Amino acid sequence: MELKDIGEFGFIERICQGCLIRPNGIVKSIGDDAAVFKTAADRLMLLTTDMLVEGVHFTRDQISPFNLGRKALAVNLSDIAAMGGEAADAFVSIAVPGGVALDYLEEIYRGMKHLAAEFKINILGGDTTRANSDLVLNVVVTGYAAENAVLLRSNAQAGDVIFSTGFLGESRAGCDLLLNRTPQDQSAFKDLLEAHIRPKPCLREGLFLAAQPHVHAAIDISDGLSSDLGHIARESGVGAKIYADRIPVSASLQAFCNRFGYDPIQYALSGGEDYTLLVTADPQHADKIAATYRQRFGNPLFTIGEITDFGQIEWVDSQGRSHRLVQTGWDHFKD
Amino acid sequence: MELKDIGEFGFIERICQGCLIRPNGIVKSIGDDAAVFKTAADRLMLLTTDMLVEGVHFTRDQISPFNLGRKALAVNLSDIAAMGGEAADAFVSIAVPGGVALDYLEEIYRGMKHLAAEFKINILGGDTTRANSDLVLNVVVTGYAAENAVLLRSNAQAGDVIFSTGFLGESRAGCDLLLNRTPQDQSAFKDLLEAHIRPKPCLREGLFLAAQPHVHAAIDISDGLSSDLGHIARESGVGAKIYADRIPVSASLQAFCNRFGYDPIQYALSGGEDYTLLVTADPQHADKIAATYRQRFGNPLFTIGEITDFGQIEWVDSQGRSHRLVQTGWDHFKD
Repeated sequence: MELKDIGEFGFIERICQGCLIRPNGIVKSIGDDAAVFKTAADRLMLLTTDMLVEGVHFTRDQISPFNLGRKALAVNLSDIAAMGGEAADAFVSIAVPGGVALDYLEEIYRGMKHLAAEFKINILGGDTTRANSDLVLNVVVTGYAAENAVLLRSNAQAGDVIFSTGFLGESRAGCDLLLNRTPQDQSAFKDLLEAHIRPKPCLREGLFLAAQPHVHAAIDISDGLSSDLGHIARESGVGAKIYADRIPVSASLQAFCNRFGYDPIQYALSGGEDYTLLVTADPQHADKIAATYRQRFGNPLFTIGEITDFGQIEWVDSQGRSHRLVQTGWDHFKD
Repeated sequence: MELKDIGEFGFIERICQGCLIRPNGIVKSIGDDAAVFKTAADRLMLLTTDMLVEGVHFTRDQISPFNLGRKALAVNLSDIAAMGGEAADAFVSIAVPGGVALDYLEEIYRGMKHLAAEFKINILGGDTTRANSDLVLNVVVTGYAAENAVLLRSNAQAGDVIFSTGFLGESRAGCDLLLNRTPQDQSAFKDLLEAHIRPKPCLREGLFLAAQPHVHAAIDISDGLSSDLGHIARESGVGAKIYADRIPVSASLQAFCNRFGYDPIQYALSGGEDYTLLVTADPQHADKIAATYRQRFGNPLFTIGEITDFGQIEWVDSQGRSHRLVQTGWDHFKD
């Protein structure tokens, strides 16, 4: 069966199945001019959107359609996580170039629905269109957060401890392995590919952190630690200092860097697509927060530095020397 | 100044200006991982999204960037209008191929902001990315509707009168003029181009109709009358009959068809992108509704047919003969 045999509306009918998994409060999902739903009156609404473009964010030969669909949703869930919110509903626009098989498209939706089911998220609507040449996926995710527990970028305070919820730089290394078509001859390399292809949105971690009264600000690391820390600093009107030897580097990234002669710290600083949370918290309560977090999730909250009132971002090397941190993370429009 | 000189974040800073025009209830607009806002607790939320792809929905040489931005928002507002809702906030994702000038992009946003201001809509967020080859715009619009006044496609009832809020087929004729690069040697042709390039979302009309207790169902005519009437019939489990000589054809479309030997009814039936509302209402109250509408808006509500309990869609020609209406409207995936 091909896409042109069933047409746009036949396609929509097929992908509808399994999209509405939490019907409570949903008046109308796919099938009208707009989705219609009740909102949580006592909470703030969150809305985020991310677009993935073929040839820029992915190539069809290097990620399976299942993982592509999964990732398109995951990166949006990560944004809700960074607000300390609970994700609610997703909306998917897709532009499909000629020659893409129906099976391929159904796999994209299967990947999305698989992750959606894990976090009890409905797919409530979207748009389907032809494309001239590039496959494009735009996903929107809504969510909710308690009014006094939204984690903004702009709330970091001088003296705050800076945490990361996970290792940094793995995804970028995985991307390099893909782009250079490096044989996956080490299990370490498989971990790096996994980090790039199947990122884990930290929704539970974000919710937990937002509920701690002394956690102040958060962002998800999508552009790279140096850039995303820059966003927090700029929005909060503060500076920051991070310590190279505290940056969490996984054994897999270390093995990769040993093999090819790279510096893991550079990968961690400018990698991007980590989708861990970068969080700041009151230093007086930081140990307690980290201990409770570890108890709850079984993983450490990595302490990587502190917020300063000095208006720039520094990193301190293993010899204790300070350097200005240049924002080397991802920028779509710079060369 | 070029896009690469200011980078993605410099670009975002520039387009932010003038996006937040109705700050009440908005906790965070552009500049965090997600937008954060209060919702109207006593009303239902609406959310719609539409994607415009270069080479499929537009070409850069045939629509100005101002009108492209305006239209990308207008088609979404039209969906909110078709639900009988009030539009609230917009979210814009854009994928930009190399070589697109900063001025061009700013004009897209200027066109969007111009229409947004007319209907008091904030632009609260979005995404910006590079594209490989095609410019892509995905716009999301949220809105609100009273719980007992949402106009669903699925609520048409046998016996209902079918209304159109405006002329049909003009946009398709305008599109043909553009694609065939026909000289605009008649003022009629300018009207048709205008209908295609600067569609008017019927938000005020939709709100008014949703507030009438005897209006039952609505859809905006985006795929074409035959297809969109088909959506209403299928979702409501009813049939429909429309009368060729009641279909509202403008003098401009008539002049165009006279000139080139086309049938205006075929344009009206299968045109698409009209963005008028197709509405059904209780026949006992139809005259009253039409009269009040005319008083309020100065334009007629065109009565074009009726909903039937016979499960298919017919059209009646000027000799009174019935024909099965084939759904000839737009389908992105059919040949």
